[in-house]
Amino acid sequence: MKGNLIYGQSGGPTSVINASAAGVFLEALSHSAEIEKVYAAHHGIVGILQEDFFDMGQEDPQELKLLKQTPSSALGSCRYKLAALEDDETDYARILEVFKKYNIRYFFYNGGNDSMDTCSKVSQYLRSKNYDCRVIGVPKTIDNDLAVTDHCPGYGSAARYIATTLMEIYQDATVYDAGQITFVEIMGRHAGWLAAASAVAAAQGCGPDLIYLPERVFDLEKVIADIQEVYDRKGKVIVCFSEGVKTADGKFIPELDPQADLSVDAFGHKQLGGAAETLAKIVGTRIPTKIRAIELSLMQRCAAHLASERDVEDSFRAGQAAVQAALAGKTDIMIGFARPDQGAYQTQIQEIPLEVVANAEKKLPDAWINAAGNGLEEPFLDYIMPLISGQPERILDPHGLPRFARLKFVQAGQKVDK
Amino acid sequence: MKGNLIYGQSGGPTSVINASAAGVFLEALSHSAEIEKVYAAHHGIVGILQEDFFDMGQEDPQELKLLKQTPSSALGSCRYKLAALEDDETDYARILEVFKKYNIRYFFYNGGNDSMDTCSKVSQYLRSKNYDCRVIGVPKTIDNDLAVTDHCPGYGSAARYIATTLMEIYQDATVYDAGQITFVEIMGRHAGWLAAASAVAAAQGCGPDLIYLPERVFDLEKVIADIQEVYDRKGKVIVCFSEGVKTADGKFIPELDPQADLSVDAFGHKQLGGAAETLAKIVGTRIPTKIRAIELSLMQRCAAHLASERDVEDSFRAGQAAVQAALAGKTDIMIGFARPDQGAYQTQIQEIPLEVVANAEKKLPDAWINAAGNGLEEPFLDYIMPLISGQPERILDPHGLPRFARLKFVQAGQKVDK
Repeated sequence: MKGNLIYGQSGGPTSVINASAAGVFLEALSHSAEIEKVYAAHHGIVGILQEDFFDMGQEDPQELKLLKQTPSSALGSCRYKLAALEDDETDYARILEVFKKYNIRYFFYNGGNDSMDTCSKVSQYLRSKNYDCRVIGVPKTIDNDLAVTDHCPGYGSAARYIATTLMEIYQDATVYDAGQITFVEIMGRHAGWLAAASAVAAAQGCGPDLIYLPERVFDLEKVIADIQEVYDRKGKVIVCFSEGVKTADGKFIPELDPQADLSVDAFGHKQLGGAAETLAKIVGTRIPTKIRAIELSLMQRCAAHLASERDVEDSFRAGQAAVQAALAGKTDIMIGFARPDQGAYQTQIQEIPLEVVANAEKKLPDAWINAAGNGLEEPFLDYIMPLISGQPERILDPHGLPRFARLKFVQAGQKVDK
Repeated sequence: MKGNLIYGQSGGPTSVINASAAGVFLEALSHSAEIEKVYAAHHGIVGILQEDFFDMGQEDPQELKLLKQTPSSALGSCRYKLAALEDDETDYARILEVFKKYNIRYFFYNGGNDSMDTCSKVSQYLRSKNYDCRVIGVPKTIDNDLAVTDHCPGYGSAARYIATTLMEIYQDATVYDAGQITFVEIMGRHAGWLAAASAVAAAQGCGPDLIYLPERVFDLEKVIADIQEVYDRKGKVIVCFSEGVKTADGKFIPELDPQADLSVDAFGHKQLGGAAETLAKIVGTRIPTKIRAIELSLMQRCAAHLASERDVEDSFRAGQAAVQAALAGKTDIMIGFARPDQGAYQTQIQEIPLEVVANAEKKLPDAWINAAGNGLEEPFLDYIMPLISGQPERILDPHGLPRFARLKFVQAGQKVDK
């Protein structure tokens, strides 16, 4: 099908989402017989609604390649959520209008499960209006919580950051001739994939003693007993936990502090954070020793200098595969990854129906968490090691600082203010 | 002078203090005619008092070389402060006793200005008792606040971490189509060298908009006005500041929060931290937008994977130079670095009397801070760029994780419990 392509980025950025963008752009630009223009929406779906998008054919291909080592969403992201189709058609009608105006026949959306839901709804609407457009989801989330796919682009790099950083924190946090308890707060609202990555450091002999995930109830008294036991034995304790762990009565850690102020974001999610500080405060009243609270914060999703080589390649291939699938006539799928049943790990592209992944969440298999609920089992390490492997070759600036892609952002839409 | 050598590490760890240890060990072990045994004290001066030290001649030289890429204090650190000599001689007498027992004739202490004070006092005491021992300080501090020397080993790597991380945070913190203010808290109690390193990111076009250092009074109303001005213009603001900034009436940021709990450490320093959260809370009541608080925490002093090549080499050379100076009969000096008056930067070793550096603190030159007190001037960039330069070659484990030195720690002292 001849027409134009538009690509957008959505949700929280990762170290490698731009590698997927590079895969989409470079692949699409090499099929000019079918794909005439390659557009990138500014701030995801918002850019489409506002006709704010760029002509990627005007960019220097070398700079597009540098997107592979440029963290965060180079095209700008958004957290805008489309209304349910049955409630309000306005945005959908506007998208159709824009797609018609610019002859968009390929729509690629790069994000997590919220974004796959957006893709799915848009495609459904376009089909109902008999507008022919191939809609493909390109996965992206450090959270690794998308259904069906073996893993998500973004996870391996965040996990490599977490494993490396925990190894380094271990060296630092165990250095004094005095007791110390160190709490490390890691992202992950509902699934513990990221905090679990700290088990890689532990397996190297320099990592956390205790790891708590949202897959298990966070029992504060049990946690304090765990910490006390390690402290009595070693004098130093490193505790990693997901920001999203909850007590039996559904409270997040910051809610255990009576002074906590909790607000919700545009998606109705509670704004977490400060959980390590809260834990430090509470445990400090029970175990009198030096206590440190560390939050890995944005660094875990933007530290491209520690991206995993496999993750960069997987992300790039996901972008390429999306274009190839669309050209082969596919639509309403997300590009995912399968894992070989046996033998050494290798990347295998898998096409997954959007409706299966939209809004679904994948948690850690129960058997990968230890019986005490404070550590990971061997099968988790077997799973994660291929994903975090390899230091990618990187082009640095003459001083050894990162060299990010420098895009021209040639405006191609008739931008309207909204 | 024939005898044995003891080396110890003190104070907060850095990414490269072990590179200095490697320099001392490898150089000293190559002079076995004069230096018979090379000992390393466990936990610095505490290890000497307790006869808890290791025989470094028993280690695999390859592992000693790997100390160049192993962060934190591999021999263990301490924050133990000797009493003033006039107040209490007990520890000094004990050190003399241990030095005599093990025929220690070379004493190397690796630390910041507190440690140089320790060196100086110990040397003074040994001399007063006619015990011949060469005492050399090896500098180490991410704070870069030692007097006379152009820069301190440890600073370049922490600065490279800060510059790189701020470039990555910039990518992330400016990605949404909505306002955001991001506060980044950086170490530095009295001098702003570390927070100033974020200006390197700004000079690359992706860094903080505002930088506040303890060299200038922290005027909260002025700071909020600065933020408001940038916010109105750009919609996104990144603010870096030293944890040690103080208001005109001497208050640290956490003290501006009425709920703050402030305790002091063994050196009588206030325990800071949580300043970014406090600022976020205060500014959030004045500028209603999304606000993020980030603390670079321990990572800025232990992220060896981002060490600067020059810093690793300078640190190693400082260790070597200490041994060479001692063998040449020098004592009561700290190894420092001079900067060529003109021409391209190159490392020049400088020997500085201990009494000049003990307890002295070097701040940023006033002319390097801009008139508004919220940014850095060009001469600072000229100063810092050579120090943060270069990505060192690193040996990684087969998965691309860090490979730290694995030492045997062969006990060589008759350890006593204290």
